[in-house]
Formats: sequence, structure tokens, C-alpha cells
Amino acid sequence: MSNETRTSVTVIGLGLMGRALAAAFLRAGHSTTVWNRTAGKADELVAEGARVAPTVGDAVEASPLTIICLTDYDAVRGLLGGDDADLTGATLVNLTSGTSAQAREAARWADLRGARYLDGAIMAVPPAIGTAEAVILHSGPRADFEAHEPVLGALGTVTHLGEDHGLASLYDAGGLVMMWSVLNGWLQGTALLRTAGVDAVTYAPFARQLAAGVADWLPGYAEQIDRNSYPAEVSALETDVRAMEHLIEESEAAGINTDLPKLLKATADRAIAAGHGGDQYPVLITQFTTPTP
Amino acid sequence: MSNETRTSVTVIGLGLMGRALAAAFLRAGHSTTVWNRTAGKADELVAEGARVAPTVGDAVEASPLTIICLTDYDAVRGLLGGDDADLTGATLVNLTSGTSAQAREAARWADLRGARYLDGAIMAVPPAIGTAEAVILHSGPRADFEAHEPVLGALGTVTHLGEDHGLASLYDAGGLVMMWSVLNGWLQGTALLRTAGVDAVTYAPFARQLAAGVADWLPGYAEQIDRNSYPAEVSALETDVRAMEHLIEESEAAGINTDLPKLLKATADRAIAAGHGGDQYPVLITQFTTPTP
Ligand SMILES: NC(=O)c1ccc[n+]([C@@H]2O[C@H](COP(=O)([O-])OP(=O)(O)OC[C@H]3O[C@@H](n4cnc5c(N)ncnc54)[C@H](OP(=O)(O)O)[C@@H]3O)[C@@H](O)[C@H]2O)c1
Ligand SMILES: NC(=O)c1ccc[n+]([C@@H]2O[C@H](COP(=O)([O-])OP(=O)(O)OC[C@H]3O[C@@H](n4cnc5c(N)ncnc54)[C@H](OP(=O)(O)O)[C@@H]3O)[C@@H](O)[C@H]2O)c1
Repeated sequence: MSNETRTSVTVIGLGLMGRALAAAFLRAGHSTTVWNRTAGKADELVAEGARVAPTVGDAVEASPLTIICLTDYDAVRGLLGGDDADLTGATLVNLTSGTSAQAREAARWADLRGARYLDGAIMAVPPAIGTAEAVILHSGPRADFEAHEPVLGALGTVTHLGEDHGLASLYDAGGLVMMWSVLNGWLQGTALLRTAGVDAVTYAPFARQLAAGVADWLPGYAEQIDRNSYPAEVSALETDVRAMEHLIEESEAAGINTDLPKLLKATADRAIAAGHGGDQYPVLITQFTTPTP
Repeated sequence: MSNETRTSVTVIGLGLMGRALAAAFLRAGHSTTVWNRTAGKADELVAEGARVAPTVGDAVEASPLTIICLTDYDAVRGLLGGDDADLTGATLVNLTSGTSAQAREAARWADLRGARYLDGAIMAVPPAIGTAEAVILHSGPRADFEAHEPVLGALGTVTHLGEDHGLASLYDAGGLVMMWSVLNGWLQGTALLRTAGVDAVTYAPFARQLAAGVADWLPGYAEQIDRNSYPAEVSALETDVRAMEHLIEESEAAGINTDLPKLLKATADRAIAAGHGGDQYPVLITQFTTPTP
């Protein structure tokens, strides 16, 4: 360990993810201070060159940049958001998962305590941290992101989404709902094909190709949404609903779950009832932006 | 038009799709016979070189290969499945959309009437027919598919899935549920981001990349399903459910629809209640293969 009084970066929270973050900084050659409630979790990192701060306050003071990665925002607020906390001059990058409202609120209290604040979301698992595969989203003042991008870059593919502190959480939520949607669409198909003796490995390449192919339509479909105009260039919602009926029939006949097919159809049916049967599929944005009745 | 007494291929049903099929055969240089209930729909094709058969029976007799593309299987049965129909020596390729049960039943009556039968599903819109983008799935006897593949190839990317006549419909249903799932996952994210002023075109590339990335996991996840073993290599279902709670919170706070987030969570909750909280996401196949309670 060097004798310099300050390190490049501090990591607060050494759970599964925090340890991966600190290890990536160390591997990239950044001098790193760490702190964790349960001190023992720092041992391996110390062996790799990390310095342990005795208190959270010392940890924040140790580096110009502090990464926070705890279970949830309540833990973050409990640790750093107290009325007496003086965070003057610090830049906090909070990579704890939460909602956009929590991110915006954390930005407010950080500001009150004199800290610069970026909110972030990690779209990766711990073993991927430090590789380009690890996508880490940031939102908040662009200047603060740019000032620390060279250090943050040690964690993976880091991007800045915009000034609104809530954006990282919103993109994260959008990414997750896409992930689960692709997986559930694949599981429904896999369940259907198994009833005909087709195993999951045989079916998967077909599902993969379909998902990737449909993904390519999204930028074009997005233009329809922004123009709020949905001409049926390739097919009308009514045609989709007829095929959804087949899907429900198939699923019922196969004795598999029908929740997903029925939700697909119920959503499309509502749009048709609202007069959109002749429009193209993205017109369903009208249903997604409306609260569940 | 040539004077030969037989043509290469017959197309029965000249709706939007049937006309695209016949036009693709003609463009590929195959002599083509057509028939449609409403005769006028053949006019343009005749101008392009098609021959019109006076009756359905004549149409089937005109070519060794007959493509059928009508609204639904009831129409097909009404036209060709009558007790008096003699289809001896014909090969029928039925590209009408339907369920696997309807396909298997059509194979039975075709067999009784002396015809060879392939069932198919068109995963494309009419303007794509005749290009490699048009995926056309076939199932039934492989020898019959192979005998006619050179002609069928004029329609697009043609594949043979297996001997079970129901497979084309099942893959079609699987492909469609994937398509709608990707689109709905994207719409939920688009609706969320719009509440922060992010337009659909700005968000779409992110959603596209996510969908394509998750698609790449499917072959590996499929192996877990076939082994019926779901070790939490990257994350456990319990972790997914906590993030699903954030998604529901975000969606509620944004005042957008919560049906999809709630269905995602309800499905995962059922698996956790069944003891799968420590397993990885594909363990949800246990829920998809179980009838809706
Ligand atoms: N793991 C992943 O795959 C993954 C992926 C993307 C995002 N994330 C997000 O990253 C964050 C951390 O996840 P993780 O996997 O590292 O979780 P974890 O292994 O459970 O670690 C939780 C961390 O939070 C600390 N903590 C919790 N409550 C605290 C409190 N009241 N005061 C002080 N410290 C507290 C824990 O300290 P102790 O050690 O003292 O308990 C520990 O350092 C979460 O928001 C998670 O959603 C994780
Ligand atoms: N269009 C697409 O984008 C698309 C994509 C994939 C799959 N498909 C499938 O392709 C099939 C045909 O679709 P399409 O778009 O061509 O539909 P369409 O334009 O509505 O044409 C329907 C065809 O079926 C005929 N027909 C209906 N009932 C009949 C009956 N009882 N007896 C005789 N003929 C009858 C119609 O004859 P008349 O002209 O006399 O009414 C017409 O030729 C459907 O199963 C559809 O799901 C279509």
C-alpha cells in the first residue's frame, strides 16, 4: 500500500456486488478505500491492496469519488443521509438498486449535505463487473459523470443517460421488464413445444432468433409512438388478436398455463374496444400508459 | 402461357397472402395454377402468367403440388375435406393459420382422401413473401417436404421442423408469443420512460439491445430446463422478485399500467411458494407447464 493520504476511489458496502466493484477498481490500478458494516468482508480486498477506513465519514473523505452499493435506499439514507452528515466536496455515485423517486430524493439530501451526486444502476452480475459486458447506467449532472468517467470505466461499460437523477432507475426497470418478458415469452413457447416432445434445447435457437428479429423492429415502431400515428403497414391489431385466440386455444389444449396469452389478448382487446383494431401493434402504448382499471 | 397440360404449382386461396404466394412462384419462373372463391382476385396474377382453374378439383389436379392459404381450417375443410373429394396423388401444403390439433386433423382427412399432406405456417407479411426474410415453417413427412423444397423455396426461407404435423402451428404460436412479449416488454419500458420525458425513439435502442442480449441466454437456459436443474449461477429467483417489486412501485408511481409487472411477479411468487426461491429464473418452466389455477 502506498503512503499517500488520499485514495482514488472509495467503495461503501462490501456485499457480493460491492466486493466485485472494489476488486475491479483494484485490478485497474486505482488506489481504493473500502468500508463495510461487517468489517470482515474487507479482508480479501485488503490482501489485494485496499485500505480500510475506520468510519463511514473517513471513507467518504478518503477519496474524491465514493461508490455506494448497499441493499436498498433505506440503508443508504441510514448510513449517509443523517442530519449531521457533512459530505462537503464529496462526489457520491449510488449504485444501490431502487426506484426513480428514491434516486431523486437521495439527490436532494446529498445536495443539502454539500455532496455532488450521481445515481446509477448496475445491469450485470458480480462476476461480470470489470468487463465490457457489465452495463452500468448513470444519471445526474453530466459534468460530474464526465469528471469521474475515467475511474468509473474500470467497472464496465458506463453510460450517462441524462441530468434527471431518476433515469438510471427507470432505464433499469425498463431493461428488467424486457428481460423477464423475453424469458417468459420463451418459457410459454418452450412449454407448448414440450407437449409435442420437442425439448428446450431444440426450441431455444428458434426463440432466440425471433426475439432478436423483433428487437430490430423497435426503433421503427418507436417512431410511430412519437408521431402518435399507427398505420397498419404490416398488419392490424385485429389480425394479432385472432392469432392470440389460437395461442390461447393451443395453450388450453396442451394443458399449460394461459395467464400470459390471456393478458396479451386482454390488453389488445381493450385497445380494439377503444377503436384501434385497424391500427398497428404499437398503438397498445395507449393501454400501457393508462393505469390498470 | 405455355401449352403444357400441367403446371408446377397450384395456389388455392387468393387473399392478401395467397396472392403474394402465387406472385412469388410466378416471379421464380414456376408455371402456376390458381383458384379463388371470388374469381376476380385472380386477374392480376393472370396478367402475370397464372392459369385459372375452373374448379377446386381441377386446380388440385393441375399440379403435383398444391398450396392452400385460406382464412381458417373450417374454410379448408369445407373446400377440400368433403367425403366425395378424391385427392389421390396430390401433395397439399396447407399454409392456413390454425392450431396443431387442426393441423393433425387435416393430415388425417387428407390421408383418407389419398393426398400427401404437409402443414405449414407463414411467419411473414405478404410483402416479404419471396424474400429470405419470409420464414415459412413446415411439418409432416420429411420426404414430401424434400421432394417439393425446390419449388417451396421460391416463397422465402423454408424449413422442415419434424414429422408431427402439429409442429408448424406450435412453433408459430411460440414465435408469436415471443413477438408479443418483446413488444409488450418494450411498451412497458417506453411508458415508464415517457413519464420522465424520454421519447420512444430515444429509449428504443436500449430496449433493442437488451432484448437481443437476453435472447443470447436462451440456449444456455434451455439446458437447465432439459436437465431439470436450476442452480443460481448468476442470480436467484428471490432477487428477481425484489426487483419486480421495484418495477411495480415505479409503474404505480408513474401512473401507468401494472398488469404486466404484476403477472411477472405473481408467476415468480408461485414458484417461490413451491420452494424455488433459490433457483435460477428458468425454473419458472414449472409454472408455465402447469394449467392456470
Ligand atoms: N448481486 C447482484 O447480482 C446485483 C446485480 C445488480 C444490482 N445489485 C444491487 O446491488 C446492491 C447490493 O447488492 P449485493 O448483491 O451486494 O447485496 P448483499 O450481498 O446482500 O450486500 C448488501 C450490502 O449492504 C450492506 N447493508 C445492508 N443494510 C445495511 C445497513 N443498514 N447499514 C449498513 N450497511 C448495510 C451489507 O452490509 P453487511 O455486510 O454488514 O450486511 C452489505 O454490504 C443491491 O441494491 C442490489 O440490488 C446486485
Ligand atoms: N396476411 C398476413 O399478414 C398473414 C401472415 C401470416 C399468415 N397469414 C395467414 O394466411 C391465411 C390467409 O390470410 P390472408 O391475409 O390472405 O386473408 P384474406 O385476405 O382475408 O383472404 C382469405 C382467403 O380465404 C378465402 N376463403 C375464406 N373463406 C372461404 C371459404 N369458406 N371457401 C373458400 N374460400 C374461402 C377467401 O376467398 P374470397 O376471396 O372468396 O373471400 C380468400 O381467398 C390466414 O390463415 C392468415 O392467418 C396471413
